[in-house]
Amino acid sequence: MSEEIIRNGSPVLIMIDRKRRFLIKVDKDKIFGTDKGYIKHSDIIGLPYGSYTYTSQGVKVYLLKPLHHDYLYGYRRITQVIYPKDSGYMIYLSGIGPGSRVVEAGIGTGYLTTYLAHIIGGQGKVYGYEIREDYIKIAKENLRLSGLLERVIIRHADIRKGILETNVDAIFLDLPDPWNVIEHAYKALKPSHPIIVYVPTINQVEKTVLALREHGGYIDIKAQEIILRNYIIEENASRPEPFMIGHTGYIVYARKVLKH
Amino acid sequence: MSEEIIRNGSPVLIMIDRKRRFLIKVDKDKIFGTDKGYIKHSDIIGLPYGSYTYTSQGVKVYLLKPLHHDYLYGYRRITQVIYPKDSGYMIYLSGIGPGSRVVEAGIGTGYLTTYLAHIIGGQGKVYGYEIREDYIKIAKENLRLSGLLERVIIRHADIRKGILETNVDAIFLDLPDPWNVIEHAYKALKPSHPIIVYVPTINQVEKTVLALREHGGYIDIKAQEIILRNYIIEENASRPEPFMIGHTGYIVYARKVLKH
Amino acid sequence: MSEEIIRNGSPVLIMIDRKRRFLIKVDKDKIFGTDKGYIKHSDIIGLPYGSYTYTSQGVKVYLLKPLHHDYLYGYRRITQVIYPKDSGYMIYLSGIGPGSRVVEAGIGTGYLTTYLAHIIGGQGKVYGYEIREDYIKIAKENLRLSGLLERVIIRHADIRKGILETNVDAIFLDLPDPWNVIEHAYKALKPSHPIIVYVPTINQVEKTVLALREHGGYIDIKAQEIILRNYIIEENASRPEPFMIGHTGYIVYARKVLKH
Amino acid sequence: MSEEIIRNGSPVLIMIDRKRRFLIKVDKDKIFGTDKGYIKHSDIIGLPYGSYTYTSQGVKVYLLKPLHHDYLYGYRRITQVIYPKDSGYMIYLSGIGPGSRVVEAGIGTGYLTTYLAHIIGGQGKVYGYEIREDYIKIAKENLRLSGLLERVIIRHADIRKGILETNVDAIFLDLPDPWNVIEHAYKALKPSHPIIVYVPTINQVEKTVLALREHGGYIDIKAQEIILRNYIIEENASRPEPFMIGHTGYIVYARKVLKH
Repeated sequence: MSEEIIRNGSPVLIMIDRKRRFLIKVDKDKIFGTDKGYIKHSDIIGLPYGSYTYTSQGVKVYLLKPLHHDYLYGYRRITQVIYPKDSGYMIYLSGIGPGSRVVEAGIGTGYLTTYLAHIIGGQGKVYGYEIREDYIKIAKENLRLSGLLERVIIRHADIRKGILETNVDAIFLDLPDPWNVIEHAYKALKPSHPIIVYVPTINQVEKTVLALREHGGYIDIKAQEIILRNYIIEENASRPEPFMIGHTGYIVYARKVLKH
Repeated sequence: MSEEIIRNGSPVLIMIDRKRRFLIKVDKDKIFGTDKGYIKHSDIIGLPYGSYTYTSQGVKVYLLKPLHHDYLYGYRRITQVIYPKDSGYMIYLSGIGPGSRVVEAGIGTGYLTTYLAHIIGGQGKVYGYEIREDYIKIAKENLRLSGLLERVIIRHADIRKGILETNVDAIFLDLPDPWNVIEHAYKALKPSHPIIVYVPTINQVEKTVLALREHGGYIDIKAQEIILRNYIIEENASRPEPFMIGHTGYIVYARKVLKH
Repeated sequence: MSEEIIRNGSPVLIMIDRKRRFLIKVDKDKIFGTDKGYIKHSDIIGLPYGSYTYTSQGVKVYLLKPLHHDYLYGYRRITQVIYPKDSGYMIYLSGIGPGSRVVEAGIGTGYLTTYLAHIIGGQGKVYGYEIREDYIKIAKENLRLSGLLERVIIRHADIRKGILETNVDAIFLDLPDPWNVIEHAYKALKPSHPIIVYVPTINQVEKTVLALREHGGYIDIKAQEIILRNYIIEENASRPEPFMIGHTGYIVYARKVLKH
Repeated sequence: MSEEIIRNGSPVLIMIDRKRRFLIKVDKDKIFGTDKGYIKHSDIIGLPYGSYTYTSQGVKVYLLKPLHHDYLYGYRRITQVIYPKDSGYMIYLSGIGPGSRVVEAGIGTGYLTTYLAHIIGGQGKVYGYEIREDYIKIAKENLRLSGLLERVIIRHADIRKGILETNVDAIFLDLPDPWNVIEHAYKALKPSHPIIVYVPTINQVEKTVLALREHGGYIDIKAQEIILRNYIIEENASRPEPFMIGHTGYIVYARKVLKH
């Protein structure tokens, strides 16, 4: 097995335990510190990804090569984000894959954008709408960290005023009033392709679904919710975790058809 | 908007209603029949995707361009399959994307295989292990229908005896005794990369997690369950659907690290 | 252990399997028939409760002494009913017990009424409002079967026009527009005591909660949902049932306080 | 409406907000203090239940007459307790009501005991087994506070060694190894009547169910779980709460039948 080696400049996911994961770019002159002790970056240069070392306090630390979702641990986060349980299913529903062209609004700090950019690959493109300049600034930083910024065209614009793209493979909306984007989305989408909406309240779901029905150009409209349950596994003592995320948001899905 | 036209030989998802979706390949000499009347294939040649027509009984029918998951409506199915709620999240966890090389076992009739092959794109590869020849035959037919067969190398072999590939990006297991594959998976995986296991009973979850812990070469081990809730949306009368899928399977996840 | 004997006139829950439970009153001249064969009532007279016999087809049948909820198997049912998972929690919340005086509307065919009448005992009283005479007729038959009719005063009246009782311990509402009963309930309730509302849609929950808040005479207002999951238990193969009830209704709770 | 007045010695539930509920016995010489200010007990004597007053900091405080479950706010709690979502359903399943005689083990600090004692009324009896003397001491204090101690006979004994009572209406078990009580429970129960078991892990569920099946004297065996979802209700912005209790315990139910 050819081992991949950590070098100066490499991204590394430092994993101490479930609550302590940190994404760093190795810089031979820096020191990484936590409440469990510190590590000199220079000490991990030359180690293979997947190996471990110890902090100054003797705590074991794994040095992982980041998967796309590990970069999120290095992201600045100033908005609510879409959780993996939801984004995984949203991508499935959307049908997108390598080469897809997708529209997303608003991008917030770029969590879903990162996953979209990962999935559509180097031949695809994400068109990310966002009205807040401060979010855009952070989203760009974040996407640069994960190396996916070049796949994303960020539009500092209000998607409720219109969508520049046409013939896109899917549209993802995470904004308070998706019903105001339904006609724009219709013009931008390829026929047969879907719009995927994410909203936190049931009232927004109702308004969105009713607007999609009334529009007449959408079929297969559905509203769903994904719930994730974590389990504690111990020999002869397995059970669900005592506390859980009770709610994030609802997912609304519909597919464009021709009206004539 | 450039419209894409249905031609002789084109795949079409025929959608009458939520319960009546059919995947056909257009053959100008054939007739498609349901309990809601029939359609002559020749009558839809030349229509744009996304348009509609009527059956002989006057029932409206939409003619959609299939997304990857629409092909499943045309698949022969003789095994339990992994549901979208689960496969969407499993793909997210796996970190795979365009160009990834992944191992899957058993492939059954190829539902998850189809999604994997879609996500890894033309530059990636799925290595699909299956011990039953009858399943392989159907899986091949199914993958041929969705046009993804060339991305899949099917191995008629028992993965519990070993994995031929090395340095793979992720391993997906859907078999009764995943604990017997843990050491083989360890050798096949790239460091930092994950194994994703899908099992229906909590006892299998416990055995798998305990085996992963005991192995020593895996970290970030977790056991989770995804639950999907559908909603009935009506103006001023929205609520969850009265019946739902209560259980499909549990997902176990772990990442390879180096032991030394 | 003193055994209790089945006599002519005794109620018996005939239990063949989970799907085949029947409530009969023993009548020495009758025959009880199912798709699994028949039993002559006279043949079970003299047997102890809890014993078994066989049908004419040789199928084993248990002869149980009915608990309060077993009588429901003998009830005529023409309305939606409140499920045990919900009524159990509703009773808990209500604080009622032996001797309580409670108001219920509408009683429908008397499922919740039966449980209320059971819990409040011979010293308590249920005041059951219902506008439909056909429901009242069936509810009376049903309550007579379970021997609880004398604890219930049925009022053929629209509770939205007013409540005759005062100083009651709890009020249970299962009707489409509970917000129209909030002021009447306030007058009827003892201070500190609760109103418990059961509604199927989230829109009704919202309207009810907002009306309770606006009224000003209620505190500790909460909206909840109870979900029941059944498990299949087999040695080394335990898991939740594949299908489940996805939704019945929501429960809204509030307690009366003095406004001045 | 005849108002009930708070007197010296009266129990009062002091409710400031959802997180601040306190159960006191009024003592004219005492002062009740919280982080929101204090109240002199003597100032609330003579006020009607359900009225409000203000703390020294001007915070509004409601003075409620305790329902049975409000006493729990005054209980000392040193063990895990059974939650209302579970105990409500367990009581329903048990079929108990006014006058019932029930066995419970272990009683812990008496939460479920309190509900049982409330439901069975002055004519019923709870036989509570507990092996730990420190728990019994606290359970007694607690039950004295809610005024229900006289309905409970506490047995400082290991129920796995045997049950003194016979012909009981229901048996409730909340202990680590309920399978060791199954034969004793069989002897103690009336035919047709149930045993209700509460356990936190699925492995305990499996062991209990298999033991009940093997015993041969139980039918209608089932394993269930109750999940409670709280909702945030706001006009046009209603949704489930973001965090929830993910797991408490499982409920196993079975009914005694005669073996011969």
